[in-house]
Formats: sequence, C-alpha cells, structure tokens
Amino acid sequence: MGCFITFEGGEGTGKTTIITYLNEYLTKKGYNVISTREPGGIEIAEQIRNIILDVKNTKMDYRTEALLYAASRTQHLAEKIIPALKEDKIVLCDRYLDSSLVYQGIARGLGIENVLKVNMFATEYMPNITFFIDVKPEICFKRIKDNNRAMDRLDLEKMDFHNMVYEGYKQIAKMYPERIVSIDGDRTIDEIIKDITKKIDELLGE
Amino acid sequence: MGCFITFEGGEGTGKTTIITYLNEYLTKKGYNVISTREPGGIEIAEQIRNIILDVKNTKMDYRTEALLYAASRTQHLAEKIIPALKEDKIVLCDRYLDSSLVYQGIARGLGIENVLKVNMFATEYMPNITFFIDVKPEICFKRIKDNNRAMDRLDLEKMDFHNMVYEGYKQIAKMYPERIVSIDGDRTIDEIIKDITKKIDELLGE
Repeated sequence: MGCFITFEGGEGTGKTTIITYLNEYLTKKGYNVISTREPGGIEIAEQIRNIILDVKNTKMDYRTEALLYAASRTQHLAEKIIPALKEDKIVLCDRYLDSSLVYQGIARGLGIENVLKVNMFATEYMPNITFFIDVKPEICFKRIKDNNRAMDRLDLEKMDFHNMVYEGYKQIAKMYPERIVSIDGDRTIDEIIKDITKKIDELLGE
Repeated sequence: MGCFITFEGGEGTGKTTIITYLNEYLTKKGYNVISTREPGGIEIAEQIRNIILDVKNTKMDYRTEALLYAASRTQHLAEKIIPALKEDKIVLCDRYLDSSLVYQGIARGLGIENVLKVNMFATEYMPNITFFIDVKPEICFKRIKDNNRAMDRLDLEKMDFHNMVYEGYKQIAKMYPERIVSIDGDRTIDEIIKDITKKIDELLGE
C-alpha cells in the first residue's frame, strides 16, 4: 500500500507550488509519485465541481454544497486515489476531507460532526499525513491579487469568511495532532520544503 | 404549517397518475396544493440529476450516486418544499428519502443506516404520510414497455435489481409502519384513489 499525503490551507497559501517541488523531490529519490487535487481530472467529479463553482448558482443551500463536495471527493477517491495507493504510489493531494470540515463544518456553520458523518460515508482512506500550510488570510489575498488570478464564486466571499476558514484550520489541526502538521508558509519555498521533506522522510522510514 | 405527502414505488407503479388525480381532488376541496418530484424544476437540482442520469457516467461509484441524490433532494427541499409548507400548502411529492434508502441503501448494498445518516444531514422535514404503491416488478415493466417510454440509465439495470427494489420497499414499509401506508397499485385508478383519499382525509382531520 502506498502513502497518502494531503495539503490544506486557504487559497493563496502556496499549496500548488509546494506540491510541485515535493513531487520532484520524491521522484528523484526513486518513488512513484502522483500529484492530484479534487476533482483530479475525473470526468464525473469535474461535472460536480462545475455545479459548485458556477457563479450563477447563488441559491445553493450550504448543505447541498457540502454533499456535492463529498460526492466529488468520493469519485476522485474511487477512480484515482485508491487505484494509485494500491499500486504502491505516493499520492500528493491538494485538499481533502479537512477542507470540508473547515469550509462547510466551521465557516458555513453546518457543524464539524455533521460534515464528518457525511464524509465518513464516502471516505474510507484517511491521509497518512496532512500538512496545513499556515499563512494569514491578508497575506494570501495579496498573493492572489498580485498573480491576477481569476476569482471564482468562493474567492469572492467576504474577508471574514476567509478569516473564519483560517481559524477553522487551526481548530482542526488541534483536533488531529497526530495526523496534521502545521507548516509556517510565510517563508521562502526552500525553508518550507525543508520542513516538509524532513517529516515525509521520517514517515517513509528514511 | 402545511402537509407533506410523499409517494414511493418503482418505475411504472403509476405514481404520476395517482398524484395528478389527488391534486385535483384536494384542490376541489379548497386546499392549496402543489405537486412536485425531485429535482422539481430547481435549476441546481436539475444540474445534479443530469449527472446522475447521464448514460455516459458508467464509472459512477454507488456512494457518489447516493451523495448526489441527497444533494439534489436538499436543494429541492430548501427552494421548493419548505417554502410551500410554510405557506400552508399541501405538498404531493413523487419520491423522497425512502427512494434513497431502498435504491442506494438496499439495492446498491450501501446499508440503510449509512444512507439514512447522509440524508438526515439534509432532511429536516420528514413526510407526514408516505404512500408505497405496491405493484410487482414484472407488471411495472410491462406497463413501461406498453407506454414506449424512453429508458434511462437506471431503467436499464437488470431485472433482479428491480426485484431487490421491490423487496426493499416492503422492508422499509415495515420499518416505518406509522408513516408508510402500502397501497395495492394493481387495481383501477378509482379504487386506488379511494383508499388514498380516505387516509388523507383522516390525516387532514375531516
């Protein structure tokens, strides 16, 4: 069985860059690595995500949103992550279950326990380790603006929502201290990668 | 608060015809009635159903399917059923929670308890009464064929699946004897409507 590593944090925390570096690092070491993120190129999961992110769907109930995220995750897990783990690969995944606990459970106010129940129906594979990339929301927003990235429906939510997400991640990290490792993401990429690879090397028994 | 009435049973049991007759009966009596079925003309719920019923989506995981049904139901409930009940209307709904318990919980083998958990996250309003239209699967299939109706992905499932659905409904009806009323649907529409209206009149205190 392979190794399942997830990365969490708000938009603009640098998860994508970090995963690119790590994929290269682990591949050079001889591991068979795949990088993915929901919906992961899985056709059914893409269709589900299109509904969630469509700016026209302003009437979407928060519980509908939570169920759609769980559905997209289930399909991505079944079609891509589980087959890769069974082939003994290292899976680097940008966002997973914790994103729903934070975004829907805390920030949307549906309750962590409720969202966990819905997701445990779908989620038989928990990550071996999760890195929470800790960057304050105001810094993330500056980064997003500087990159001139297009904003989708979720990006457009108010700043206090993003603050709630940030505090939510800190709460979740405290709930799962053995699985979730907090990484200070407001440093150079070299410093960040050094901390993360140290943990991964330990996990892989090196 | 209005009255929430649901109708359950496999395809071809005659639910649509029954609901049409009942709507007329109750409207004539002076009630404010709406007939609906998931996705109920709710744009977001329609989009979700299109994914479920798309014949191309053969790789859909059963848990993804269950979560998508729950998501579609949640949106239909939030946008259409709850507002109608708050306006003191009688809501006649073709399929609801029990369909998921039977189709995903029993026929797909995900477990009634698991599917119930996912749906209770979404379903704050339980029907006041549910009519299970009891027609044997072989009769339903003959009716569908006679009507030359187009078959969608779910219709194309094997006959043993439909038998499992039928037995599943009987099991659910036993689980909720106070809410679910079984109606012999292999009779004339007049006989069926007579039984159902008797129960509804009792419920509405006439």
